[in-house]
Amino acid sequence: MIKAKVIGAGGYGGVGITELLMKHPEAGIACLVDKTDVGRRMSDLYPHLDGFCDMEIVDPEDARAQEAADVVFFATPDGVAMQAAGAELDKGAKVIDYSGDFRFNNLEDYAEYARRLGRDPEHKSPDLLTESVYGLPELNRERITPDTRLVGNVGCFAISCLLGLAPAVREKLVDIDSIICDSKTGVSGAGKKPGPAFHYPSRYDNMNAYRLTGHQHVMEIEKNLTILSGDEVRVTFTAQVVPACRGILSCLYGSLRDGIGIEAVLDAYRSFHADHPFVRMYDRNSGVGTHHVRGSNYCNLIVDVDERTNRLRIISHIDNLVKGQAGNALQNMNLLFGFSETTGLDHFGQHP
Amino acid sequence: MIKAKVIGAGGYGGVGITELLMKHPEAGIACLVDKTDVGRRMSDLYPHLDGFCDMEIVDPEDARAQEAADVVFFATPDGVAMQAAGAELDKGAKVIDYSGDFRFNNLEDYAEYARRLGRDPEHKSPDLLTESVYGLPELNRERITPDTRLVGNVGCFAISCLLGLAPAVREKLVDIDSIICDSKTGVSGAGKKPGPAFHYPSRYDNMNAYRLTGHQHVMEIEKNLTILSGDEVRVTFTAQVVPACRGILSCLYGSLRDGIGIEAVLDAYRSFHADHPFVRMYDRNSGVGTHHVRGSNYCNLIVDVDERTNRLRIISHIDNLVKGQAGNALQNMNLLFGFSETTGLDHFGQHP
Amino acid sequence: MIKAKVIGAGGYGGVGITELLMKHPEAGIACLVDKTDVGRRMSDLYPHLDGFCDMEIVDPEDARAQEAADVVFFATPDGVAMQAAGAELDKGAKVIDYSGDFRFNNLEDYAEYARRLGRDPEHKSPDLLTESVYGLPELNRERITPDTRLVGNVGCFAISCLLGLAPAVREKLVDIDSIICDSKTGVSGAGKKPGPAFHYPSRYDNMNAYRLTGHQHVMEIEKNLTILSGDEVRVTFTAQVVPACRGILSCLYGSLRDGIGIEAVLDAYRSFHADHPFVRMYDRNSGVGTHHVRGSNYCNLIVDVDERTNRLRIISHIDNLVKGQAGNALQNMNLLFGFSETTGLDHFGQHP
Amino acid sequence: MIKAKVIGAGGYGGVGITELLMKHPEAGIACLVDKTDVGRRMSDLYPHLDGFCDMEIVDPEDARAQEAADVVFFATPDGVAMQAAGAELDKGAKVIDYSGDFRFNNLEDYAEYARRLGRDPEHKSPDLLTESVYGLPELNRERITPDTRLVGNVGCFAISCLLGLAPAVREKLVDIDSIICDSKTGVSGAGKKPGPAFHYPSRYDNMNAYRLTGHQHVMEIEKNLTILSGDEVRVTFTAQVVPACRGILSCLYGSLRDGIGIEAVLDAYRSFHADHPFVRMYDRNSGVGTHHVRGSNYCNLIVDVDERTNRLRIISHIDNLVKGQAGNALQNMNLLFGFSETTGLDHFGQHP
Repeated sequence: MIKAKVIGAGGYGGVGITELLMKHPEAGIACLVDKTDVGRRMSDLYPHLDGFCDMEIVDPEDARAQEAADVVFFATPDGVAMQAAGAELDKGAKVIDYSGDFRFNNLEDYAEYARRLGRDPEHKSPDLLTESVYGLPELNRERITPDTRLVGNVGCFAISCLLGLAPAVREKLVDIDSIICDSKTGVSGAGKKPGPAFHYPSRYDNMNAYRLTGHQHVMEIEKNLTILSGDEVRVTFTAQVVPACRGILSCLYGSLRDGIGIEAVLDAYRSFHADHPFVRMYDRNSGVGTHHVRGSNYCNLIVDVDERTNRLRIISHIDNLVKGQAGNALQNMNLLFGFSETTGLDHFGQHP
Repeated sequence: MIKAKVIGAGGYGGVGITELLMKHPEAGIACLVDKTDVGRRMSDLYPHLDGFCDMEIVDPEDARAQEAADVVFFATPDGVAMQAAGAELDKGAKVIDYSGDFRFNNLEDYAEYARRLGRDPEHKSPDLLTESVYGLPELNRERITPDTRLVGNVGCFAISCLLGLAPAVREKLVDIDSIICDSKTGVSGAGKKPGPAFHYPSRYDNMNAYRLTGHQHVMEIEKNLTILSGDEVRVTFTAQVVPACRGILSCLYGSLRDGIGIEAVLDAYRSFHADHPFVRMYDRNSGVGTHHVRGSNYCNLIVDVDERTNRLRIISHIDNLVKGQAGNALQNMNLLFGFSETTGLDHFGQHP
Repeated sequence: MIKAKVIGAGGYGGVGITELLMKHPEAGIACLVDKTDVGRRMSDLYPHLDGFCDMEIVDPEDARAQEAADVVFFATPDGVAMQAAGAELDKGAKVIDYSGDFRFNNLEDYAEYARRLGRDPEHKSPDLLTESVYGLPELNRERITPDTRLVGNVGCFAISCLLGLAPAVREKLVDIDSIICDSKTGVSGAGKKPGPAFHYPSRYDNMNAYRLTGHQHVMEIEKNLTILSGDEVRVTFTAQVVPACRGILSCLYGSLRDGIGIEAVLDAYRSFHADHPFVRMYDRNSGVGTHHVRGSNYCNLIVDVDERTNRLRIISHIDNLVKGQAGNALQNMNLLFGFSETTGLDHFGQHP
Repeated sequence: MIKAKVIGAGGYGGVGITELLMKHPEAGIACLVDKTDVGRRMSDLYPHLDGFCDMEIVDPEDARAQEAADVVFFATPDGVAMQAAGAELDKGAKVIDYSGDFRFNNLEDYAEYARRLGRDPEHKSPDLLTESVYGLPELNRERITPDTRLVGNVGCFAISCLLGLAPAVREKLVDIDSIICDSKTGVSGAGKKPGPAFHYPSRYDNMNAYRLTGHQHVMEIEKNLTILSGDEVRVTFTAQVVPACRGILSCLYGSLRDGIGIEAVLDAYRSFHADHPFVRMYDRNSGVGTHHVRGSNYCNLIVDVDERTNRLRIISHIDNLVKGQAGNALQNMNLLFGFSETTGLDHFGQHP
């Protein structure tokens, strides 16, 4: 049994990993840390856990928060883990960070990322940055191993796009400058903090695009597609929010290169995802929707070609809080500790 | 490992018990039976089960549907089990029926139930009726044992009301003619079959009362309260539906008898539910809602007294598809086979 | 054309009266006042009004906010109007206040109201309090006239309960100590300000009761029923919130007095509401729901008796933001200025 | 006052035009016709109209249904109007058809449309087809005049895409083979008839793409863009449905031609839509969503360029039942009768 510490336990990312860790046969929760709700029980914040997780939320400065763990999840926004991960690593822990702090393992890329968001381009732990690994098992599994210490967990929109585009880009099925990602998310992607755009009366029966000036997940989509392609990839990405709680539906488009048809596409996708236990593929008539991945770590891909326009069209479905966040983090943890990749994750959701 | 057969597998009650059986350590699914969708895989109907439950739906007349099982769940409407349960019992199975067919173990009560609904008052299997046990473990646990063969699983509204009212009625805290049950359900309570009242555009942002002439669950509420009281109990019951999928919220009222205050109430409730693992109690300031029981077998009760009017007020929360249906059925199964009552059910839901 | 000033224009109560005033043939908006969003256009806050209401929000201290108007709506919380209404009245305006400040026209009742809510029991404008009129036209129409200056608009829960209970209480159909109001509201009743309980991910698929210690609308229900009855009335009231935006569904119960049956009930209700243009009555089989009053000023009542328990059961449906707030305020304005009661209000909603 | 007949009155398209006609100062409803619910009052089907529209639904064969009207709305599926419009025209009526029957005014285009949908390519009224006019006022206003008899009202997805793409295509801002329409609709777009995909429990918290093999609105998008362009246009179109009732959000993409930047784009859009009273334009930071057009006839366009990829990105927002259906039909009626284009339509929705 390994011991896990969750920093930022009170948010949706924190409760998500807490739920998963409690069901994991090889891991247990050592400490739940947050700066708000200190002293309250986790089940006070999340009464569905009453009797299951009544641990107290501990302040980061509390001695209990500083005891060593085997794995530390930073379910925290940008800027936290780059300051605090070092201390955890020094105590012998492996670290999995949810934020953008460790999604780019070189200074130039991080600086570009920070600049796009209007932030300080200087990383606070440059040595750790270069050690870190991008935590997308389906792309990077061989680098997420018991020898790895530090993983930057993938952004929710990014994983939905990358799992859908990676085969096409690696196999050069599409023109590299033709890629469009049209992504819709449920409201939980915005986290637990209330705000006018997430207020029920403003949110029901409402769809809107947002951050059209540039979403924070674009850079990691482009960087990883560029690695797969060998050529620089730029994408048009449109984030939208719809009146749902969980789920991301990404429609991914690219112009097929001459001579590429549906069979070549299917071959590439089947081959790429052949040994990815959490990727399932469907055809255009399957009727798949986001509720079919709700509550699970699966990514369902509809692999399709619009023959009339010779365009690749992939419809990617994930639960933004599972494969898009805590579930993928646990999958990374499994790889970091040499557990089977699916341990504690091989479950379906609940319907309806 | 016991083998289970699910009849009516394609509906919400069927998929609910299928999901639970797949996680149960002592049970497995032998056969999924239904009259519609015959020949399709369960995962075609419910794609979230893709790779988990790809069994074919079998027609009731199919030889495979008639093989013996250890336990048979009739996730079917009134009238099915009373015709077909006998054959299953004869093959040595225990039977758990979801419908009203076996919720009244004498002919008079059944006739009264049927008459209220405008149906044939004659039961098709009178011998089985008198053998059957009302499947509410918290009321009837000592009668649901390995010696029992036939259980009538509780109605969803009924269980939400009975768990909330039983202590008050047994301990004579309230005037027996003062009881009102005001119950709101999510739409899944109506089942999987589409209809005008459950069509999304007519259902969102809409609340309404229905079946004001008499809901089919009233009779079992009254009968079981009468047993607890010793005196005949009649209740006013108002079924309502709100734009949610899962959940029943029942507000239960009764005039406190002279001299009864909150302390006596709390004593009675704590005592009654002391060894009921799926009942949790809260006070009026707890902020409990139906999402705290969503996806789980728990019933959360707010136990309260309105001092200004000297009235008992219980707020009862369940997931109508779990404690209100498949979860309670599995709890009954556990008792029928001598398993721990919580086996395969001791899990929390997912939030948000 | 009369000129209206709206104080608290930026909230749901403010935008509601703004929408209605813009369609009113005899009234126009002179000034929109609020303490937040000062300097922004109303259509910046509410883009559906773009091109229709581009007036600037003005600070209360701004000279424009202090110009005289014919009618002033205080769409503000408790405590505002009792301080500021006097100045508006002095300038010759009539005042309609949405809060509890002027719902009780004597000091004792106000003090009791304030005490129940844990507030200062001393009213800041006692003279105005005694002058004020309770703004429920269906109860008080003869007192809301061109001679009236100051109206306390009804609470949303209160109006749903009072319209449903007034005939029964006035005609002594029910035992006065047997009344229960079980009321469910959509989320917009909580106003525009985001909060954890109204955050979409916590609110969808969730029902809960709240303020079980005492809702602020109970006192005005009781006071007005007491006036109708002649005897002191106390009610048990349970506020609940469900995942809808608009709508209140109140189930209202009372034990019928000996000899009272459905015909006497129907007579009393038809008689009481005979000349109330915004009250429509239905029977138990009508299938009425809150979406049938959505966006309109109607109150739909299902008038019913549970014969088995000899209990009156009224199901009352309103749009909490129209008949429960701005629409009723406009109805009061019509009476205050001698317009036809239905002017600017005789419209239906939109379906679906 | 002109007299209108509505055929297919009982569906969402029928009630939509009924609501609008009742508020129109120059028109009245002469007859409501449908094949289902014959003999029921419109307000029985739609109780929000109780007291407003209590007209009886009349069978098409009924003599009342065959009396002459000034305008006839066919709120019916493909295949109805092409059989029945002639008789109405012969009686002197103008006809506005909601279906695809008259959206293509030549036989070849209609045959191609029908073939795509797997239907009989032969039109039943070829003479009327060539007389008909495509009812998109913003494209075709000069052809929708008092001299016009027959209008094919636009498809809901089509209008959202065409209003957003027309300026770019006419002004050749984008490469003609680069256009992608990613469109999300609320559930009401599927009409009033219940079905498994629109059943509340399957629809809430679910997003999915559908009809990936080809949506029936693609052909009219392509045909009208081709007319604007002069060159043949083919688009990739992806229909999606999200858990909302009303609204279409279309993200429209095209590669900007060399030298075209945001200023040229804005000029083209401002110029094209300068005298279109129902089109409003916004920039990328405006925070516009579908609830800002909800219940109104407006189309809100965010006009944007993704500079990093040199791609046009238009976000188009409509209410699918108003500008996408009944509202646009009324706008056509206004033009057909020489009324001001905005008569009966110059209203905003309601918020929240």
